Amino acid sequence: MKLATLRIGENSTTAALAVGTDGYLLLSAPNVGDLLARPDWKAFVTAAAAAGDSAVVPAGAATLAALLPTAGKVICCGLNYADHILEMGRELPDYPTLFAKYADTLVGAGDSIEVHGSESVDWEAELAVVVGATLTRASDDEAAAAIAGYAVSNDVSMRDWQNRTLQWFQGKAFDATTPLGPVLVTADEFPAGHGFEVRGWVNGELVQHGNTGTLVFGPARLLSYISQFTTLRAGDVVLTGTPGGVGMGRKPPRFLNDGDILSTEIDGIGRLENQIRIHQGAGTGH
Amino acid sequence: MKLATLRIGENSTTAALAVGTDGYLLLSAPNVGDLLARPDWKAFVTAAAAAGDSAVVPAGAATLAALLPTAGKVICCGLNYADHILEMGRELPDYPTLFAKYADTLVGAGDSIEVHGSESVDWEAELAVVVGATLTRASDDEAAAAIAGYAVSNDVSMRDWQNRTLQWFQGKAFDATTPLGPVLVTADEFPAGHGFEVRGWVNGELVQHGNTGTLVFGPARLLSYISQFTTLRAGDVVLTGTPGGVGMGRKPPRFLNDGDILSTEIDGIGRLENQIRIHQGAGTGH
Repeated sequence: MKLATLRIGENSTTAALAVGTDGYLLLSAPNVGDLLARPDWKAFVTAAAAAGDSAVVPAGAATLAALLPTAGKVICCGLNYADHILEMGRELPDYPTLFAKYADTLVGAGDSIEVHGSESVDWEAELAVVVGATLTRASDDEAAAAIAGYAVSNDVSMRDWQNRTLQWFQGKAFDATTPLGPVLVTADEFPAGHGFEVRGWVNGELVQHGNTGTLVFGPARLLSYISQFTTLRAGDVVLTGTPGGVGMGRKPPRFLNDGDILSTEIDGIGRLENQIRIHQGAGTGH
Repeated sequence: MKLATLRIGENSTTAALAVGTDGYLLLSAPNVGDLLARPDWKAFVTAAAAAGDSAVVPAGAATLAALLPTAGKVICCGLNYADHILEMGRELPDYPTLFAKYADTLVGAGDSIEVHGSESVDWEAELAVVVGATLTRASDDEAAAAIAGYAVSNDVSMRDWQNRTLQWFQGKAFDATTPLGPVLVTADEFPAGHGFEVRGWVNGELVQHGNTGTLVFGPARLLSYISQFTTLRAGDVVLTGTPGGVGMGRKPPRFLNDGDILSTEIDGIGRLENQIRIHQGAGTGH
């Protein structure tokens, strides 16, 4: 099944089930994260679909909000694509490089990304893994069983801020700059060990392409590893890293301009399309 | 005024106002973070104290919970004490080194700190700044006016995990390892530019001593800087960095042992006293 968080009105959202290509069946939960917090979420959605008495919104009439607007944890992995690491002449890491961001970073699949005060806005197309149950010091098998599903994300990064210090957080945690969506596709729709094709475009030009089959630390391994030090809960999300082709790695470096269209797609899940808006001079922080 | 979050029963807490040295006046909010989310929190507490019809719990009968158990953001600054940076032969930084953790890291002022799977647990005595109002791209003056108050913290760090990769997050984000308390002392009790004496002890031996007057980035500057990229809200907390004397910096390095007592004190605020408990071999993550 495919689950989405739809905007209704100005400040409200609802969870919904994608019904074919036609539309969304509204579910009585404010967003997908709250839905996943129900231990019976699968049965709950199945029953709602079978009853068929909920409103169906045509896909064209629905606006997608951030999939998990209230995620407790948004944990990201860097340096995770083996082919990209090896082509850069580096050795494969023994441990995942992890950093944290907050749910304030998240926006919807079609939202514009409004950046204040950065002049080097870069792209990082990524597979997002959504947690479906509580994990504390879990094994890989326990972690695999707790994956609710997958979504598409782009860990849009403000490289000037990221490179001001050794810690990446400040360049990664700008509010409303990380699109997450368009839907969560439940894990049962993919065979174990399935590799996802991840692609990113800028104004229609393909700039990134990788397959999560080459991840050094796959989804279950990442969730297990993180759960050794912090509890993961339903609705938390882990971004699995980005393949080669980011703007910072080009010669000369290339960054996003005001008005650019950033597209991110994963086969079997869907596509994000976000316009970049860059606002300068507003802040007093630098 | 001094505000605390007290444990009542197994899984419940309440905000409270410290009344002299005698006890705590219970306030109708589940914790200090929720209290600060009321725009009228100061008037609310003042009115409750004046009414005097709430229960007063003797200090000896109250157990302190993490001051802000549901903080939306716990943002930490590293490398911030000028005297320590200069004595290490480094240059003063142009920008604060920031990293994030989650509220799951927080414990109360007298709680034991249960560490699973680390063999190099280190101390970092710190002043915590508690946010009292929403800040988005705020000036230093706006940030100063939005400081609710100050508390004591210890950014207990698992150095083995911290040094596995370039990003510190995984060594800093262990659940239930960051004591925060014992109380929030409101900002009006300190003059502008006040420097706090920060001290840390291990089993009664003084191991750290600094004064926040030597911070490169003071409380208001840090809040303003962070608010340029992410919104800070009432109940969020910023840890301002630690002075010299951490275990990792000693020759040879020195780490905490199972059973050690870690004490952290700031003049005018109070003292944390936490026993370290180290559990090995439980995890599968390494």
